[in-house]
Amino acid sequence: MPSLLGALVGDCEIEALFSDEADLAAMLRTEAALAAAEAEAGLVSVEAAARIAAVCAVFRPDRDDLAQGVARDGVVIPALIAQLRAAVGVPHADAVHRGATSQDIIDTSLILRLKPALDLLERRLDAIGTALATLGIAEGARPLLAHTRMQAALPFTVADKIATWAAPLMRHKARLAEIRPRLLVVQLGGPVGTRAELAGQGDAVTRALAGRLDLGAAPPWHSQRDAIVECGGWFALVSGTFGKIGQDIALLAQSEVGAVRIAGAGASSAMAHKRNPVAAEILVALARFNAGLSGTLQQALVHENERSGAAWTLEWMVLPPMAVTAGASLRMASRLLKELSFA
Amino acid sequence: MPSLLGALVGDCEIEALFSDEADLAAMLRTEAALAAAEAEAGLVSVEAAARIAAVCAVFRPDRDDLAQGVARDGVVIPALIAQLRAAVGVPHADAVHRGATSQDIIDTSLILRLKPALDLLERRLDAIGTALATLGIAEGARPLLAHTRMQAALPFTVADKIATWAAPLMRHKARLAEIRPRLLVVQLGGPVGTRAELAGQGDAVTRALAGRLDLGAAPPWHSQRDAIVECGGWFALVSGTFGKIGQDIALLAQSEVGAVRIAGAGASSAMAHKRNPVAAEILVALARFNAGLSGTLQQALVHENERSGAAWTLEWMVLPPMAVTAGASLRMASRLLKELSFA
Amino acid sequence: MPSLLGALVGDCEIEALFSDEADLAAMLRTEAALAAAEAEAGLVSVEAAARIAAVCAVFRPDRDDLAQGVARDGVVIPALIAQLRAAVGVPHADAVHRGATSQDIIDTSLILRLKPALDLLERRLDAIGTALATLGIAEGARPLLAHTRMQAALPFTVADKIATWAAPLMRHKARLAEIRPRLLVVQLGGPVGTRAELAGQGDAVTRALAGRLDLGAAPPWHSQRDAIVECGGWFALVSGTFGKIGQDIALLAQSEVGAVRIAGAGASSAMAHKRNPVAAEILVALARFNAGLSGTLQQALVHENERSGAAWTLEWMVLPPMAVTAGASLRMASRLLKELSFA
Amino acid sequence: MPSLLGALVGDCEIEALFSDEADLAAMLRTEAALAAAEAEAGLVSVEAAARIAAVCAVFRPDRDDLAQGVARDGVVIPALIAQLRAAVGVPHADAVHRGATSQDIIDTSLILRLKPALDLLERRLDAIGTALATLGIAEGARPLLAHTRMQAALPFTVADKIATWAAPLMRHKARLAEIRPRLLVVQLGGPVGTRAELAGQGDAVTRALAGRLDLGAAPPWHSQRDAIVECGGWFALVSGTFGKIGQDIALLAQSEVGAVRIAGAGASSAMAHKRNPVAAEILVALARFNAGLSGTLQQALVHENERSGAAWTLEWMVLPPMAVTAGASLRMASRLLKELSFA
Repeated sequence: MPSLLGALVGDCEIEALFSDEADLAAMLRTEAALAAAEAEAGLVSVEAAARIAAVCAVFRPDRDDLAQGVARDGVVIPALIAQLRAAVGVPHADAVHRGATSQDIIDTSLILRLKPALDLLERRLDAIGTALATLGIAEGARPLLAHTRMQAALPFTVADKIATWAAPLMRHKARLAEIRPRLLVVQLGGPVGTRAELAGQGDAVTRALAGRLDLGAAPPWHSQRDAIVECGGWFALVSGTFGKIGQDIALLAQSEVGAVRIAGAGASSAMAHKRNPVAAEILVALARFNAGLSGTLQQALVHENERSGAAWTLEWMVLPPMAVTAGASLRMASRLLKELSFA
Repeated sequence: MPSLLGALVGDCEIEALFSDEADLAAMLRTEAALAAAEAEAGLVSVEAAARIAAVCAVFRPDRDDLAQGVARDGVVIPALIAQLRAAVGVPHADAVHRGATSQDIIDTSLILRLKPALDLLERRLDAIGTALATLGIAEGARPLLAHTRMQAALPFTVADKIATWAAPLMRHKARLAEIRPRLLVVQLGGPVGTRAELAGQGDAVTRALAGRLDLGAAPPWHSQRDAIVECGGWFALVSGTFGKIGQDIALLAQSEVGAVRIAGAGASSAMAHKRNPVAAEILVALARFNAGLSGTLQQALVHENERSGAAWTLEWMVLPPMAVTAGASLRMASRLLKELSFA
Repeated sequence: MPSLLGALVGDCEIEALFSDEADLAAMLRTEAALAAAEAEAGLVSVEAAARIAAVCAVFRPDRDDLAQGVARDGVVIPALIAQLRAAVGVPHADAVHRGATSQDIIDTSLILRLKPALDLLERRLDAIGTALATLGIAEGARPLLAHTRMQAALPFTVADKIATWAAPLMRHKARLAEIRPRLLVVQLGGPVGTRAELAGQGDAVTRALAGRLDLGAAPPWHSQRDAIVECGGWFALVSGTFGKIGQDIALLAQSEVGAVRIAGAGASSAMAHKRNPVAAEILVALARFNAGLSGTLQQALVHENERSGAAWTLEWMVLPPMAVTAGASLRMASRLLKELSFA
Repeated sequence: MPSLLGALVGDCEIEALFSDEADLAAMLRTEAALAAAEAEAGLVSVEAAARIAAVCAVFRPDRDDLAQGVARDGVVIPALIAQLRAAVGVPHADAVHRGATSQDIIDTSLILRLKPALDLLERRLDAIGTALATLGIAEGARPLLAHTRMQAALPFTVADKIATWAAPLMRHKARLAEIRPRLLVVQLGGPVGTRAELAGQGDAVTRALAGRLDLGAAPPWHSQRDAIVECGGWFALVSGTFGKIGQDIALLAQSEVGAVRIAGAGASSAMAHKRNPVAAEILVALARFNAGLSGTLQQALVHENERSGAAWTLEWMVLPPMAVTAGASLRMASRLLKELSFA
């Protein structure tokens, strides 16, 4: 994303989790943990696992070679493993990536990064919940005119309005608690998802790998993308909720309504008197962007056979921007609530 | 939906739940239950509630008048209430719809019909789970060639394949159990969602109404549509899961692959030798249709102020077809599994 | 679509063009014209063509049998042709549908109905253009406050506002003129789109068929759906344009702004003072619905090989509602402009 | 976009056109041309225009300040103009951006970059058309089995298949010729789109500005986004067309079908025998991504009043990735056709 637009609709913290650097680090962490788990199960030697862990801890991939590998193979793993095996050297090179397939590493890396992303988003949700509560205490008793179908309706209070903004946040937290155990699990299935290459130790290796990565264990889910899509749906629910709040505030801040004031609202290049409700508008844009992406992500459920290059790549294009957009929604909402006061 | 296309992609049982007849019946049931709940709270007389219940039980609205009312008012309730009050007559007419707003009745009617829709879909999910288990017992030991990235990969078994189809169904059931308590709640808020018109008895009336309708009680959620959108996301997850299964079967049934047979596959008007995997293809179409609608439904979260005519109407256009499409996915999947055998 | 919702967001005239009745009539017309065209080319006898035309003119298909056929075959044609051949009888039955495939008839029927649909939508666009011009003459000189980014900006005039509403309509007409020759062409390719079954007379038969149906001739386009998707994009552009106009009017009609009045605005069941800008809100809902469908329709471009059951069925689910929604947008816009006056 | 994923689904040339650098350069070019055009009309002095042009030619904005400006104002122009005026200095600073608004500059910059983007995409379309023609000459006579509804149908030839791939490309070129004059026009309207700040010279300044920028002249289109959305629809049509070709090739390249060979197909990390049709799969992913974005872009037509921060920002998030995705589709298709041979 160009940095100027990113300043408006991006989120540096979430973007960092989906950077190449973070992805490569998580993939190397996964390879090291896999070797260690396989050593526990006697599938590779303890020395091999130690060597792999030591190399992974400091390994700096040749990024140009990886880029060429991705373009050629559709996934980064063949090139990365080739580099990693060369770095590990004899006699332990062939213990690298033992019994695993590209998707095991790439999906597990994704989950390793979704986990802190969800934690971060939840902390921001909490902070906004607190900000709303504080605003409610400070200004809740003020009268406010409710509006239905774009018309003034009847008086209620600022507290009534804030309650409608805050309630979904609690539900989003409840959803997150439900989604996490389905989503935050390692991927380990081997080439066709049967763990057959793990010599009867597949489940044990999976549990050990999960333990080392602080994720859950689960059967392979290479071609079952429902938890990923559900997570994207949650991102869109979050953005949508703040899109509603942004829309409300933009409407309340209209010159003719004047029910809220936004400190530090945006300047116009041509109309010095204008104070534009920029953060409120951006919340609407973010909501609509994520809404659209959520529909595209649902298309990726049609994942043909044991692994779909097409459907999986589509996920890579869609899910990270959705996380970033949810993050940006929370970032913008937090800023907007700081700037907001009821008239 | 034209009936010829409906024979392919529709679902009569789900469609019936979203018919005008079912909607009107649920709205009348809601008005009767509301009057009864208000009688309990002393807001209307017991006689009025009894009269309203008696009329609602047999009332046949003038549908042309309702259609004109919808076109004029954007909602059916003003016309319906006018008709209903006329039917109730003096002295109880003004006890009809006491303290309620259109959205209370329309949303509650929706929920009253989503409830059996979800039950029906879950029963079908269960039946398909059983069918898959049966298929696994009968044919699970057969060898099958796994495919990744549109290429033959390695041998596994029919049981391995079926396991990837069945696992998401269990998760969909778990999701449903989580969604139900958030979704299956009455709507009762009055004109601006404060229950102010219920004379301090709002919560009691809500609990009584919920009890009478066998739904949950919750604060008003007029402008908080996250549970509706989440429900739509679930419909799309279901359709998407069966889109994946359909795609798999269409690929396995290819002439050159021949890994499955589909009894009674579709005829061609021009090629007598063709046996088309119609149900499998339809599952893909249904998945893509619902995926797209789920993104559109997410747009409806941007629900301005206390009630949005635009966002709410958008829901009406999108959610019922999503339920029907999920139903059609399950119907088609059930048929396809009956026709399916591994080669 | 349920008739109550249809009164709000439907369009009877467009819906009629996409009814089973209209589809069957157009398919029978196509079969008759095909036989006549083939008679010209000497592929069937003149007597056969005459008999087929005579039967098609009066044939009333067994609709239950057709519905079963659609469910089984994924297309109506095998069942319809079987019925039609039985009605034509010996010795001409086998001249029915000679050299054609289901898709030839179904796609041509679609085009035969899109043609009057586009004509109808264009006439409505013209009428709205006239209504806007009339409004401009009557009220254009009035001052109006322009708004940017949800804030009052600077004064301009009603004429300035109306000009921004009217300009896209002219472009939509220009686009329509460009789209028509690409879209309004017969489909005739035979089973795999080569016209090989037409004994070297394929192009001649196509031209004759096109002439008889008052459509253009073109190479077979079974698997090339760009003109269909482009047409859907145009429907969404139309709805989107009126969504913008509806949004403007809803904003201008706000109680606090009061820049426009809407005669006959919608009633509320709970707030007698409310006058809801129903038609304006519906225009926004229609725009968002068609926007979403346009993205889904684009998915149908991925049409595998020579005919895709999945992608083609997806079109059937999406394109007709898009046409209806565009029609409803024009219908609602026309009504709204009649009701509208500037304050 | 992370560079590893970008190697697969990105397009460096198109991305460069949508970089901050290219945007700032085009905005400065627009400001310089505007001053020159206003000098022609006597609205600013010739000396001021010369000074502005000289500064714009070498000006290097403070990017951190711009990023802060964007975050605050929602658009970069207020900060950029402040910087630019400081650089121009007295007495000509206030001639910078005379009578213009942020959107005039930002939209014109977009158009200045869409123009070479469309040219580039058209050149690639031409090259692919040539590649298809060459392939048809070399291999067109080979027999190939046509497939309909995921089943083997009847024999045809490679030339028949290639014809179905090539025909849409010609139509895409025709569409481009139609779209260009609507799209490639300057934006100049001033704060509320009336050119009132240009002292009666608005149309003359627009024509002069258009001439200097080699774009068309047109009335202001601040709130009329149909040409932008239409352009996005074209991007999706292009991606969708190649998604179909990619899907075809992936199906033909299946191990069991073996109708095409792809030289240099992708390696697997776990299955040495695999040759994955990576480019073909990516074409499908790109098609589905752009299809989804096209629906989201259509949402941006609902552009409230004279300028919508929400709808306009949504365009910024969606249109550039659509151009990049169309570019990537053409890049991948070009590569794939080089690698492709029929068996």
